[in-house]
Amino acid sequence: MPVRQSQEAKRRRRRSYLLLPPLLIAAASLLACDGGGARNELAVGGKGGGIGANLAALMEARGLTDADVEAAVKTYIPTGGRDEYLIFASGGHSGQVIVIGVPSMRIIKFIGVFTPEPWQGYGYGDQTNAVLAAGNRQGKPVLWADTHHPSLSETNGEYDGEFLFINDKANARVAVINLKDFVTQQIVTSHLIESDHGATFVTPNTEYVVEPSQYPAPLAGEFAPIEEYDEKYRGAVIFWKFDREAGRIIEDESWAIELPPYMQDLTDAGKGPSDGFVFINSFNTERAWGGTLEGNPPMESGASQNDMDYLHVIDWKKAEQVVADGKTETVAGMRLIRLDTANEEGLLHFVPEPKSPHGVDITPDGKEMVVSGKLDTHGTVYSFEKIKGLIDAKDYAGTDPYGVPILPFEKSIRGQVELGLGPLHTQYDDKGHGYTSLFLESAVAKWDVAGLKVLEKIPVHYNVGHIAAAEGDTTTPDGRFLVAMNKWAIDRFTDVGPLLPQNFQLIDISGDSMQLLYDMPIPLGEPHYAQIINADKINAIDVYTPIGIDPITHQVDANMVEPGKERIERKADGVHVYMTAVRSHFKPDIVRVKEGETVHLHITNVEQAKDATHGFAIGSQNINVSLEPGEHSNISFVADTPGVFPLYCTEFCSALHLEMAGYFLVEPL
Amino acid sequence: MPVRQSQEAKRRRRRSYLLLPPLLIAAASLLACDGGGARNELAVGGKGGGIGANLAALMEARGLTDADVEAAVKTYIPTGGRDEYLIFASGGHSGQVIVIGVPSMRIIKFIGVFTPEPWQGYGYGDQTNAVLAAGNRQGKPVLWADTHHPSLSETNGEYDGEFLFINDKANARVAVINLKDFVTQQIVTSHLIESDHGATFVTPNTEYVVEPSQYPAPLAGEFAPIEEYDEKYRGAVIFWKFDREAGRIIEDESWAIELPPYMQDLTDAGKGPSDGFVFINSFNTERAWGGTLEGNPPMESGASQNDMDYLHVIDWKKAEQVVADGKTETVAGMRLIRLDTANEEGLLHFVPEPKSPHGVDITPDGKEMVVSGKLDTHGTVYSFEKIKGLIDAKDYAGTDPYGVPILPFEKSIRGQVELGLGPLHTQYDDKGHGYTSLFLESAVAKWDVAGLKVLEKIPVHYNVGHIAAAEGDTTTPDGRFLVAMNKWAIDRFTDVGPLLPQNFQLIDISGDSMQLLYDMPIPLGEPHYAQIINADKINAIDVYTPIGIDPITHQVDANMVEPGKERIERKADGVHVYMTAVRSHFKPDIVRVKEGETVHLHITNVEQAKDATHGFAIGSQNINVSLEPGEHSNISFVADTPGVFPLYCTEFCSALHLEMAGYFLVEPL
Repeated sequence: MPVRQSQEAKRRRRRSYLLLPPLLIAAASLLACDGGGARNELAVGGKGGGIGANLAALMEARGLTDADVEAAVKTYIPTGGRDEYLIFASGGHSGQVIVIGVPSMRIIKFIGVFTPEPWQGYGYGDQTNAVLAAGNRQGKPVLWADTHHPSLSETNGEYDGEFLFINDKANARVAVINLKDFVTQQIVTSHLIESDHGATFVTPNTEYVVEPSQYPAPLAGEFAPIEEYDEKYRGAVIFWKFDREAGRIIEDESWAIELPPYMQDLTDAGKGPSDGFVFINSFNTERAWGGTLEGNPPMESGASQNDMDYLHVIDWKKAEQVVADGKTETVAGMRLIRLDTANEEGLLHFVPEPKSPHGVDITPDGKEMVVSGKLDTHGTVYSFEKIKGLIDAKDYAGTDPYGVPILPFEKSIRGQVELGLGPLHTQYDDKGHGYTSLFLESAVAKWDVAGLKVLEKIPVHYNVGHIAAAEGDTTTPDGRFLVAMNKWAIDRFTDVGPLLPQNFQLIDISGDSMQLLYDMPIPLGEPHYAQIINADKINAIDVYTPIGIDPITHQVDANMVEPGKERIERKADGVHVYMTAVRSHFKPDIVRVKEGETVHLHITNVEQAKDATHGFAIGSQNINVSLEPGEHSNISFVADTPGVFPLYCTEFCSALHLEMAGYFLVEPL
Repeated sequence: MPVRQSQEAKRRRRRSYLLLPPLLIAAASLLACDGGGARNELAVGGKGGGIGANLAALMEARGLTDADVEAAVKTYIPTGGRDEYLIFASGGHSGQVIVIGVPSMRIIKFIGVFTPEPWQGYGYGDQTNAVLAAGNRQGKPVLWADTHHPSLSETNGEYDGEFLFINDKANARVAVINLKDFVTQQIVTSHLIESDHGATFVTPNTEYVVEPSQYPAPLAGEFAPIEEYDEKYRGAVIFWKFDREAGRIIEDESWAIELPPYMQDLTDAGKGPSDGFVFINSFNTERAWGGTLEGNPPMESGASQNDMDYLHVIDWKKAEQVVADGKTETVAGMRLIRLDTANEEGLLHFVPEPKSPHGVDITPDGKEMVVSGKLDTHGTVYSFEKIKGLIDAKDYAGTDPYGVPILPFEKSIRGQVELGLGPLHTQYDDKGHGYTSLFLESAVAKWDVAGLKVLEKIPVHYNVGHIAAAEGDTTTPDGRFLVAMNKWAIDRFTDVGPLLPQNFQLIDISGDSMQLLYDMPIPLGEPHYAQIINADKINAIDVYTPIGIDPITHQVDANMVEPGKERIERKADGVHVYMTAVRSHFKPDIVRVKEGETVHLHITNVEQAKDATHGFAIGSQNINVSLEPGEHSNISFVADTPGVFPLYCTEFCSALHLEMAGYFLVEPL
């Protein structure tokens, strides 16, 4: 019997989950019964056998332990059932976003973001091409990205399920994805910086999407020799203004702060008491830039000399005012607060952080920040109250070479916790625990935040980078589940050649002891970070309505086609084809043009039934769009090659799907 | 305790699986025991509780039935365990191939084939760009495809696990994927035809990879108005010659046969007694071409008028000889057997098949072919022996308008079986059963092939297209598992917007009764067909060795770089950078060029440890390659924009991965 999960059922189930221990005794008597709803006598092992006998035989046959069976039963979703959470993970250098269900760990969707993806028609039609073109660098298309940190939009520090933001490390771009339809609607490109890493992260009401640079370079695409690194190379942190109504980043209302040439790394926005501040850890205060062929040590050692690097503490509310007051310089089209101004206005402070750290993670109550020293075994717990006090009192331990005040380390922290080898990222649950990934030790450490004491470690396979907890970056994490995003799979999966998948491992953190539940290969891409949101918060639409909607604008397109209004018109700018798609034909299905003519296709899927998607492709023209129910697409191209080209529906739509075809005829001159 | 599966263990497990019924009784006593290897006391429910008590509580909490638990236990793979089979599925209009493990139904890899894919560096470096460029149509790049039918290479009618072939319906191309490393090594483009569908299918020793066209068009890209469809439009079936040693299709040794303008649909190659023949079903003998805006009925009705279409029976061994005898015309660079010649030489015969059929599936013993009438409720079982006898006796019922002899229907068949609504594709097990997908009925019918009798139907969710059985297209199918590739998911998964995933359902066919085990969303692409191979048959390599290998040729690249031999050289054709990649630096890591110079990067990953992949990207240059251990890549581009661009390793490789970076400096003129 399919398991349908209403919201009530889900809440009930969650409460049941928590009642597990007491139920154990009560449930022992259930063993004897036959079980309800068994569809298959063999499965149940015949009358009176119950699940037990058959189960034991299966376990023996498949070499499974009790713990394996428990994990299987904790993660399995029967047909028609629903996952409880959705993971939104970056795809890394696939340039995409990956959506995964928890606890089943099934991938439900890959979202095209920076890389053209034809199944969704992303980058093969006018509207999506326009989105991608906004990502051009110096006027040239860059059709891939290195996505790292997805950020769900937040309201009062809680994921609200409306939007997702994602960065491109390699080419310094940010994208906005609408979670009504899981479509990328906007890409913005900074011309100020060359790369980013600590992006995207949002302020608690998504006022801003934050993007700091990573590898320093001259700002605004200028040139300077590498030897002038200290003098000419800089970083910057961009605050992209987000307009929730419009569902767009507003470039004109965005601004940036210049930063010294350290490698800004990861960001977290303050919340609650720390709302108004943004924290960015960094490394390479040594300002090493390698030069392996010229006798310099490689960056990996050059950047690892110092015992401390700098946690950047940025007062963005104050910076907003500085921008409003006009104390900026417009560089590469963006209002930039110069470093000197930032220092004068007290916008930027540094706090030492041990040894090439990676990750800054604010506690759910917004009072403390944990920074883990990649090359140091400790997690350092900073107190926002202390830091704010030091800033207000101008209690400095000195300044960096760029005049940025440095706060005293010991006075900034509450304490440190010895975590293990290679601690990186910290997540939180609803019981005062921190969970930190230990890359070198290949484990996750669970520790008591108040007591600064490690409680347990669970091995992971292998070498975990980020971890993500359910609702983990919000003011109220759920606990329950943690995902370890391991970098090396080595021997976990069937061999598929020298390029191995990554390994996501689902861990049950609901009990006293962590339990490994599920290994999941990432078949495409290299996720870095992910966020996990309760699936109930996502309000995806089933169809576009009324018909004729452009998914990029969510407005009815000016060129939409109503049934009965199909036509072909020759205008000054070319041949306009107004076409409808419905099961199982296009109208028109025969299009005749002359060699060299410009063709403008306007196609509306006039269906309104859920899942009634049609594709539209023309052979040899590099055209394929996906038309969801009610969706409209425009496709412009030049018919520069004569011939007879089949056109057809690419998404299996009906019994007569193969007959949903026609011809595009280009008559030679 | 992780479950490591040696080959012996797998065989043992499979035998155990078959012994399930007798074990049921013997195993009942196992219930009482504590279970071995439990890692988590809570999981086991404390001392003496056994798996049963906790399990029952979990089932209650999660709303699972006994059958659900059995399915979970049948599909779960614990950390370190191995799937038994691999599914190779087409990605549809994603242009890729998808690799999925059975029984876990986890996707292990997406293979880039026709669509550029940056995580694998596919289409972002010289070697892979050259592979893609071979797919140009009329000199223009087409950077997507509609992949449909993957074909594993065969030896004596068994999957040998060495190569995979896949077609592109939209643009008539075929790709060759090497299963040593799961990399696409070759794309061939037919200039004879515009589209294909019944591709790819291989002859039983992979002598040929077969590609018939689907939508008729004038051959060789010529132009003719649609009104001349009957006279000027044709189909063709291409026999691409495969050289296993070279791992390449040899275009010069390939040839084709001209076909009438019907829509050739699906192919299967004869084996055993029928070896030497190829069978292609077709539809639209009506030769309808739509014209919805010009008063014609749409193709969907025009193509569905006749009660019968034509199964094509092609004697390819004889055709091979005809080609060798020179009785061909060279059209679009390919030796073509003209339709008249085919008729004269007796290469082509038609057998009527009911009502817009879809699919032709040869029985494992090679003696019979099942064709299902999409718009007819029957599966028709053709006898090869009878058909051969009719051909030899020239026992014709007439000829089609193109002179092709038609064999009498009743004399060609053994019989028909009433299957249900919308039967499409048939697969087989090891017990004489056929399994046919019923699209409209949304079910799979299991029937007795000898007795022509349906035994059972299982509902699927929803509207299944192809199905795939374990080792299902070979002379010895395994039985055990069947996958239903459903086209509509509707309500099966968490909503992710109007573009829904497809739904692969894993079905246990090992017992008397079919059992639905697992729903798996397809998150990217629309698979059409798949093949399922025993994972033991795949011999993927872990690393490329010796270092410096080009994955496209599997030879050491002329420009490979040994450690210690790194250098930058200026030559007549530009700046050559000879670079090595190793944890955690590039050498050189600083590259200085002048604006406008042509740059040739030659990068070797000198690692030999499994999973020690490095990426290499340069910001804003649209460059990202994936370098597996031992792999070499060449990347050429023009540095036409001045500036300072970070370069770095995109694949997380080590603790100091973020420091594995450098700079590409382009000095302005």
